[in-house]
Amino acid sequence: MSDIELLIDKLIQFRDARDWEQFHNPKDLALAINVEAGELLEQFLWKSPEEANKEKVKEELADIFAFALLLAHKYELDVKQIILEKIAANDLKYPVDKAKGTAKKYDEL
Amino acid sequence: MSDIELLIDKLIQFRDARDWEQFHNPKDLALAINVEAGELLEQFLWKSPEEANKEKVKEELADIFAFALLLAHKYELDVKQIILEKIAANDLKYPVDKAKGTAKKYDEL
Amino acid sequence: MSDIELLIDKLIQFRDARDWEQFHNPKDLALAINVEAGELLEQFLWKSPEEANKEKVKEELADIFAFALLLAHKYELDVKQIILEKIAANDLKYPVDKAKGTAKKYDEL
Amino acid sequence: MSDIELLIDKLIQFRDARDWEQFHNPKDLALAINVEAGELLEQFLWKSPEEANKEKVKEELADIFAFALLLAHKYELDVKQIILEKIAANDLKYPVDKAKGTAKKYDEL
Repeated sequence: MSDIELLIDKLIQFRDARDWEQFHNPKDLALAINVEAGELLEQFLWKSPEEANKEKVKEELADIFAFALLLAHKYELDVKQIILEKIAANDLKYPVDKAKGTAKKYDEL
Repeated sequence: MSDIELLIDKLIQFRDARDWEQFHNPKDLALAINVEAGELLEQFLWKSPEEANKEKVKEELADIFAFALLLAHKYELDVKQIILEKIAANDLKYPVDKAKGTAKKYDEL
Repeated sequence: MSDIELLIDKLIQFRDARDWEQFHNPKDLALAINVEAGELLEQFLWKSPEEANKEKVKEELADIFAFALLLAHKYELDVKQIILEKIAANDLKYPVDKAKGTAKKYDEL
Repeated sequence: MSDIELLIDKLIQFRDARDWEQFHNPKDLALAINVEAGELLEQFLWKSPEEANKEKVKEELADIFAFALLLAHKYELDVKQIILEKIAANDLKYPVDKAKGTAKKYDEL
């Protein structure tokens, strides 16, 4: 079993022990990701880019991963696969010779 | 090499080929996660919980994972480890006998 | 009629001409605010603090205000009143002598 | 003085008494809006659309308005004007005869 499969397994066990699948519809999982992303963002508020507390960043990142894994599982998406596909797609959208050293969006390159 | 390590490797290769590490400070990575989380959320806006377009959800989820992996890497966090730790912590925060079948936050249980 | 009342009036007229009240439940209005807030944030991504495009910021801010006004209206909240009350509450939470010149949260002052 | 001008005045007074303008660059104000939007969203998480606590919604909405007003002020935007302009623009983007009763985006109408 891969790392990602193992994590999803553990998350599902945790969820099912509490009978929480009833709350975990796709829309609320997307909400949960946003709530946790906002809590992550708060760690950087009014601060310079490197000044956040690593312990708190760790907590919020773990929450984001957890809900993102649960949402991927809900849609039967293969997490490894969709990320590799996205990298391949971005490879075409952001060709190295045009995108190198610039943060512009692909439609402005 | 585990799945997660492989994905981080690929993301770093993609980033470095474009000389983008200069933009990828922790604060902007946290912003990026929020921007992508907002795009994920948009797929569910004005819709019933199950009505989102799976293809678009897949795209946005992949983006969230990508930036979350890059931020974890930036802080040298072991993704598998931090999620397992979080599950263990939530196991204590949400004891099965109190949390079963309710969506209340731990401080209201 | 005050500025704020006039704006809410116009927003309600726009909504009702399209028969959109059926979609504007409180939860989806909160989602809409988050989606627009994410689009605002995108204007600042990978940029220094002052580098966003003012025209685009204007567009996203207008959207945030519009949905926030609609949500306030939904709950029959008096926008002026709730902001003045919040300022008064924050006046106590962040006493000038402790909060001056620091960005710490009230519970760390 | 209009309601909106009065609110901005009060917010600036509050800010300046604490010497906080130094933290209030446009990027961090956009972050603050997102953090508060996430806290608003949390009130609706795992709940049916009407089930949020009105008192908490009120608090989070007030925070969103406060930071949105401060960001508008930072860019010298006339809040009333930009919302009226947005409504006018959306009037063209979402013609009543096409948009009536549907939640589709303008590019799918």
